[in-house]
Amino acid sequence: MHFEITNDFLQEVEQLIANKDEKAVLAIFEDLHPADIAEVLDELNFEEAVFVIRLLNSETTSDILEELDEDTLSRVLQALSTKEIATEIEELETDAAADIIAELPDERKEKVIAHIEDKEHAQDIVDLLRYEEDSAGGLMGKELVAVNENWTVMQCVKEMRKQAQEIGEVFIVYVVDDDNVLKGRLSLKSLLTTSTKTLVKDIYVPEIHFVKANDHASDIAKIMQKYDLFVIPVVNELHQLVGNITIDDVVDFIREEADRDYQMAAGLVDDVEADDSIFDLVKGRLPWLILGLFGGLVSVMILSKFDAALIKNKELFFFAPLIAAMAGNVGVQSSAIIVQGLANNIVKGSIWKRLFKEVSLSLLNGLILSALVVSFSLFFGLSWKFGVSIGLSLIVVIIMASLIGTFIPILLDKKGIDPALATGPFITTSNDIFGIFIFFYLSKFLLGF
Amino acid sequence: MHFEITNDFLQEVEQLIANKDEKAVLAIFEDLHPADIAEVLDELNFEEAVFVIRLLNSETTSDILEELDEDTLSRVLQALSTKEIATEIEELETDAAADIIAELPDERKEKVIAHIEDKEHAQDIVDLLRYEEDSAGGLMGKELVAVNENWTVMQCVKEMRKQAQEIGEVFIVYVVDDDNVLKGRLSLKSLLTTSTKTLVKDIYVPEIHFVKANDHASDIAKIMQKYDLFVIPVVNELHQLVGNITIDDVVDFIREEADRDYQMAAGLVDDVEADDSIFDLVKGRLPWLILGLFGGLVSVMILSKFDAALIKNKELFFFAPLIAAMAGNVGVQSSAIIVQGLANNIVKGSIWKRLFKEVSLSLLNGLILSALVVSFSLFFGLSWKFGVSIGLSLIVVIIMASLIGTFIPILLDKKGIDPALATGPFITTSNDIFGIFIFFYLSKFLLGF
Repeated sequence: MHFEITNDFLQEVEQLIANKDEKAVLAIFEDLHPADIAEVLDELNFEEAVFVIRLLNSETTSDILEELDEDTLSRVLQALSTKEIATEIEELETDAAADIIAELPDERKEKVIAHIEDKEHAQDIVDLLRYEEDSAGGLMGKELVAVNENWTVMQCVKEMRKQAQEIGEVFIVYVVDDDNVLKGRLSLKSLLTTSTKTLVKDIYVPEIHFVKANDHASDIAKIMQKYDLFVIPVVNELHQLVGNITIDDVVDFIREEADRDYQMAAGLVDDVEADDSIFDLVKGRLPWLILGLFGGLVSVMILSKFDAALIKNKELFFFAPLIAAMAGNVGVQSSAIIVQGLANNIVKGSIWKRLFKEVSLSLLNGLILSALVVSFSLFFGLSWKFGVSIGLSLIVVIIMASLIGTFIPILLDKKGIDPALATGPFITTSNDIFGIFIFFYLSKFLLGF
Repeated sequence: MHFEITNDFLQEVEQLIANKDEKAVLAIFEDLHPADIAEVLDELNFEEAVFVIRLLNSETTSDILEELDEDTLSRVLQALSTKEIATEIEELETDAAADIIAELPDERKEKVIAHIEDKEHAQDIVDLLRYEEDSAGGLMGKELVAVNENWTVMQCVKEMRKQAQEIGEVFIVYVVDDDNVLKGRLSLKSLLTTSTKTLVKDIYVPEIHFVKANDHASDIAKIMQKYDLFVIPVVNELHQLVGNITIDDVVDFIREEADRDYQMAAGLVDDVEADDSIFDLVKGRLPWLILGLFGGLVSVMILSKFDAALIKNKELFFFAPLIAAMAGNVGVQSSAIIVQGLANNIVKGSIWKRLFKEVSLSLLNGLILSALVVSFSLFFGLSWKFGVSIGLSLIVVIIMASLIGTFIPILLDKKGIDPALATGPFITTSNDIFGIFIFFYLSKFLLGF
C-alpha cells in the first residue's frame, strides 16, 4: 500500500526507459501517487526524468512537479518551455504554483504568467509572489471557502458547492462580512445540524485564530502546534481574509527548520545531504573545518609559549587534549540547551539567575569530574600537587565553558541573530582555545613554573 | 489575539492567588484558551496551579490537563482524587484520556476507569492503553465518523449528524462495509454535490492511505508528510477500522523526535530543558561528560608513551589538540549527514560506493586543510620535513575520522540501534583518541624518532 523504492525497481525502470518501452513505463507509473513518482524521478538522471514526464498527462505531472526536490525541479523546468510550464501551473493550487514560479529566472517568470489562461489564477499567483518565502503570505494558498455572515445556511451550502468544485478538500468554512473582513468560522458540524433557514451570523463561531500576512513561519508553526490547528486563515492590515495556510506546509517548515539547526550544530554550512555530489559536500563542510583549523593553530601558539614547562611539567601537555575536549563538550551541551530554550520561549528570568544556575550546575559537574581526574593522576603516579592543580583547572575550565556556551547564544538572540549559529564548531573551537589558555596559565600559577 | 506570558502577568496572577481573590483570578482565566491556561499553570508553583484548577469548571480543566507538560500534569493528578480524575476524563477525547491515564500508577488507573460513567468511552480508553506509546495505536483516537457503503447519502448525513454531535470537528468521513472493514473515504465535496438518494458505494473514493495499529510513529509521520494528509485511518490485522490519527499528534511527535536527535548530538542524555532543576540538568549532562573524560584519559596515556619525542619533536605536542579537534569536527559532520540520510531513507547504493565517496571527499578536504597547516608551520619556522609530516598525518586523520563518522551510524542502523546515538560526544571522543593515536604513530614513522 505504501510505496517504497528498491534498487531492483529502479534498475527495471531504467532498463525500460533505455529500451524506450513507453507502454511498460506508463503501466508502472499509472498506479503510483504523484509523490511516489516524484521520489522515483529524483533518483533517475535528467534525461530519464524528462522522458517519464513527457509520457504522463499534465494533471499528473503538475502534481509531480510540486513534490520534486529543488535540484530535480529546477533542471526539469529548464527542459520545459514557458508554455508547457504554464499548462502545468494551470492545474496547481496557488501556493504550489507560486513556489514553482519563484524558482524561475525573472524573464521566464513573466512569460509563464502571461501564458496562464485563467487570469484570476494568474492574479492570485502574482499576489503570492510578493511575500517572503518564510512568511504567512509565502506559505498561504488562495484556495478557501468563505461565506458571508448575512447568508442563510441554504445559501451557504449552495455557494460552498460552487466553491468546493474548484478547490480540493474543504476543511474549514470562513465567515466574512461584506468587506471581506474575517469574522469567524462555520463548523461542518453546525452546517449538518441546523435548519437551512438559519442565518450564518447566528451560528458562526467568532473565536478564530489567525495570522497576519507578514508573520514569520516559525511563529505560525508555534501557534498551529499549540492550538492543534489544521488550517489557519491569513489576514491583511485591514483584517481582510487574504488566504489560508494548511498544516502540511507548516510541517514541512518545522522539519526543515529542525534539519537546519541540526546541521548548524554539526558544522555544516549548506543544506547538504548524503546523496549530494562530492563538490557540494566539500562546499558544505569546508568552511567550519577551516575555522576549526585556525582555532587549532591558536592553540598551537598558546602551547608553544609554555615550552619551558616541557621539562618539569611535561604531563601538562599530555592533559591538554583532555581539557580542550571537556571544554568543547560542556560548551556544546550548554549551547544546545539554551538554543532549544530560546526556540521554545522558556528562557525566562533575569540574567543573574541564569548565571547563578549555570555556575552552580557546572561547579557540581566539575567537582565530580575533577574527583575522577585527580584519582586517575594519583593512580598514574603523578604528584598530589599536580593532581589537585589539574582538578582545579578542570573545574574552572568547565565553568567558563558552560558560561560561554550559555551566554553567546543569548547575546546573539538579543542582537537578532539566529542563536543556532553559535552551536557546534563555533562553541567547540572557542572553548578549545579558552580551555587550553586557562589551563596553562592556571597551572603555571598553581605549580609555579 | 495570541496570548503570550509576560513576567508582569505572572506576578499579577501570583499576587491575586496569594490574596485568594477567586473572582479576579476567574476573570483572568475565563477568556483564555485552555492551551494558554496550561502554559500559565506550568509556570506557577504546585499549590497555585491546584488553586486555579479547582476554580475552573471541569470542561475547561479537562482541556487544560491535556495541554500541561508532563511534570506539572503528574503533580496535579496526585492532588486529585480518582473520582475527580474520572470526571475530567469523561470530557476528553479518547486519545487524550488514554495519555493521561497512562501517567497514573497501576492501582489508580483501574480505579479511575471504574469511575468513568460512560462505559463505551471507558472501553475505548482501555483499548487504546494496550498499544505502545509511539505506535499508530498509541497515537490514534477512537473519535471518527464512519458510514456504511450500502447507505444512501441521505442516511449518511443523518448518521453523520448523530456522530458529529458526539465528536469535535469532522475532517474526513470513512466508508466501511458490514464487517467494519475499511473501504475508502467520502469527500465533503461529494456529499455537498450529489443527490441524497445516491448510494455511498457509488461515490466513495476507494484510494485511501492507512496505517496498521502497530506501525511506528516515525513511519506514520513520513507517510502523512509525503502525501500531505491531515488524518489517517488505523486498521487492525483484519483491515477493520479501529481509529484514526490526526496530524497534530504527529506534529508533536516530529518535534519531539527532532529535539531528541538534537540533544543526543549535543551529548544530553535526558530530555533536559533550560528551566529544569539543577539536579535534572546534572543528570542529563554528566554521563556523556564522564565518557568524554575517560576518552581524554586514554589520550593522556597515548601521549605519555611518546615522551621520548618531547626532546626532539616537542612541536608534535603543540599540534595534538588541533589534530584531535579536526578529527572530532570531521566526525561530527559525517555522522550528522549520515544520520539525517538514514532518517530520510536517502542512504542508498552499495557500501563500496559510499566508501569511495567518503574517501574522495575527505581527501579533497584534507588536501586543502593540510596546505593551510603546512604553510602555517613553515611560517612558524618549523622544518619542511616537520610540516609535510603534520600535513600528511592530518590527511590520514581526516579520512579516518570521516569513515568512523559515516560507518558507525550505518552499522548501528543495520543492527537496529538508533544511529543518532553515535553522533556528538561518542564520535568526538572516539575520533579524538584515534586521531591522536594515528598522528603520533605516523609522525614517529615519518620523522623517525
